[in-house]
Amino acid sequence: MKSDQHFMRLALELAGTASGKTNPDPVVGALIVKDGQVVGAGVHRKAGEPYAEVHAIQMAEGYTEGATLYVTLEPSPQFGKTSPCVELVLNSGIARVVVAMQDPNPKMAGRGIQLLRENGIEVDVGVLEKEAELLNERFVHNMSKRRPFIISQVAMTLDGKIATSTGHSKWVTCDETQLVVHKLRNKVDAILVGINTVLADDPLLTTRLPGESGKNPIRVILDSNLRLPADAKVTDCSAAKTWVVTKEDADPERVHMLQQKGIEVLFVPVNRFGLDLHALSDMLYQRGVTDLLVEGGSEVNGSFLRANLIDKWMVYIAPKVLGGRQSLSPYGGLDLEFMDEALRVKIHSVEQIGEDICITAYPNDDSSASGSTYVIDYLNEELTTLSSS
Amino acid sequence: MKSDQHFMRLALELAGTASGKTNPDPVVGALIVKDGQVVGAGVHRKAGEPYAEVHAIQMAEGYTEGATLYVTLEPSPQFGKTSPCVELVLNSGIARVVVAMQDPNPKMAGRGIQLLRENGIEVDVGVLEKEAELLNERFVHNMSKRRPFIISQVAMTLDGKIATSTGHSKWVTCDETQLVVHKLRNKVDAILVGINTVLADDPLLTTRLPGESGKNPIRVILDSNLRLPADAKVTDCSAAKTWVVTKEDADPERVHMLQQKGIEVLFVPVNRFGLDLHALSDMLYQRGVTDLLVEGGSEVNGSFLRANLIDKWMVYIAPKVLGGRQSLSPYGGLDLEFMDEALRVKIHSVEQIGEDICITAYPNDDSSASGSTYVIDYLNEELTTLSSS
Repeated sequence: MKSDQHFMRLALELAGTASGKTNPDPVVGALIVKDGQVVGAGVHRKAGEPYAEVHAIQMAEGYTEGATLYVTLEPSPQFGKTSPCVELVLNSGIARVVVAMQDPNPKMAGRGIQLLRENGIEVDVGVLEKEAELLNERFVHNMSKRRPFIISQVAMTLDGKIATSTGHSKWVTCDETQLVVHKLRNKVDAILVGINTVLADDPLLTTRLPGESGKNPIRVILDSNLRLPADAKVTDCSAAKTWVVTKEDADPERVHMLQQKGIEVLFVPVNRFGLDLHALSDMLYQRGVTDLLVEGGSEVNGSFLRANLIDKWMVYIAPKVLGGRQSLSPYGGLDLEFMDEALRVKIHSVEQIGEDICITAYPNDDSSASGSTYVIDYLNEELTTLSSS
Repeated sequence: MKSDQHFMRLALELAGTASGKTNPDPVVGALIVKDGQVVGAGVHRKAGEPYAEVHAIQMAEGYTEGATLYVTLEPSPQFGKTSPCVELVLNSGIARVVVAMQDPNPKMAGRGIQLLRENGIEVDVGVLEKEAELLNERFVHNMSKRRPFIISQVAMTLDGKIATSTGHSKWVTCDETQLVVHKLRNKVDAILVGINTVLADDPLLTTRLPGESGKNPIRVILDSNLRLPADAKVTDCSAAKTWVVTKEDADPERVHMLQQKGIEVLFVPVNRFGLDLHALSDMLYQRGVTDLLVEGGSEVNGSFLRANLIDKWMVYIAPKVLGGRQSLSPYGGLDLEFMDEALRVKIHSVEQIGEDICITAYPNDDSSASGSTYVIDYLNEELTTLSSS
């Protein structure tokens, strides 16, 4: 007899196949198991389409009586865009529901589970909960913080350099890492760079994946003084949207020029450090951006760091040493006086990608934590929790 | 029946126990095995003492006839400070010798093996050769390059910062990493810092290990203009030697003041970048320094990088993000124009130490190598070769 963990892991893998495709919804996978056999399977493909449980119950028709439903997220008790999952479960004859994690929406959390229990269904909650939370980290963040999940992505040398003193950075990382970067672009709603990066590199900022038409995230350009040249590649909005973020008193002529090209211009207040990134974050969220990939350069990264707006770090380290007094570091911005003031993070994983290393980290909310949760996922093949506190 | 690999691994482990204790000699371990059982074991403890084979043959007295000798380094054919190992083997009745690696001294390489074979001994060479070369990397380097093995040790934040803009750096890494750093100090002949590090931190630069009286490396201070204060901690030579490196035209009064305190002053030529580090490297080697730990700061590290004198990188990454325009990077020094000019290195291992990550790298001599030899040794428990080219 396979264990609950076994089926939940499979449901999580199913859910993961839709990663980045369901925004603003969470990813969800569901399995219905009867007498140790999978009789129904479903995955939430995209926002507006049926939930995972709906697909699974449909497939399992005639086999649901007394069966167990494994679902990676608490079923919804509400009538929403699609059928309410709890009602479907109650009508199906399913006897037991195993849930990986509660709905992270504080208004909903636990209500679906309660409703199931009140109707005589046996419910177990928390099977592979951490894995489920990780898989839906973007959604969990949206529900608890009501702002975009902001990922800071950095490609640096072993000595922490993203570009030479002249701004030259092509390329720091290997082909395999660049593919991983494009896969991440393929998942997020928006990607953000500063005007200096546009002026230096004239990037396209679209998703390029071999043999696959990727989803192009919205290109968000921070440009206080509207220096974006009319012929910059990002001004061509045929393949992807471009939003330029500037000051409220920006030059109306330049605003008009950009708007003529199909670019949306967003106006945000300034604070003593420049564009108010918290205001921008709120504005992006209101406009439906649930996750944002910040790709620099150094000063923009530094501004997000100082605004304490980074929710995840993806740091790619290439096997090269650049050195130099003026070469660029991943996070510029304001200087701190003491090393103790550095922002503490939690290393989540260290992976090998081609010849590079990728370190993933999250903010360390527990400032007293000396032994943080630490996972090494090398070659993407193995996931080992080494310690947790 | 245990394999050759099995006994050679044990011999390498024995050898490793003397790591850093045998300078300028290599570390060597030896086992004598008869009918699948270890009948003799030996390790070279320190320079001037008997070689590993001598101890092993002594222990195995009465059991050597027809036995197999496992030795991590080719036995010496020469009469040196101690008995010539080849002659001892020939007189012992040992029938077979398994050697991990040849003597890296070009004048000696293969001669001991040849002599054994000429005398009818069966000799197998190359069992766990890479592991043996790694264990004796310092000695191999000395023999082939005739200069000290130079290790650049860096403690930085996840964003590649070793200190704030004010020079504050206490502490970047966790206690466990600081213990590892002191263990490395305990192994090397000399440790080098720049005068700015002395002026900023007034370090002692000795080895502090709990419950153990460490070997204090010679403290080498780069100080072109002899700014070392008379009351700096490193001027107290009671616990460790201090060598101050300066220009040939240094102020004689200051030289005298330092010499009065027991400090040796080394004079090296200057080149257009400052003190000639190649000349210094040669001078240190002539004075018996077989390995040197370079601990910065930023400009000194950058000078060693630009002089292409770094033979090994030990980069400790702490789970914190500092940021800042003026905060210090691990390798300052001259700026390069293009990212392609960065020095390519080979990542050798990625380890977790406490909450930190330690990346070990070597120069990448094969500039065309895209898939380098790559080993992850996490928690020091497992050594996995993931790929090699």
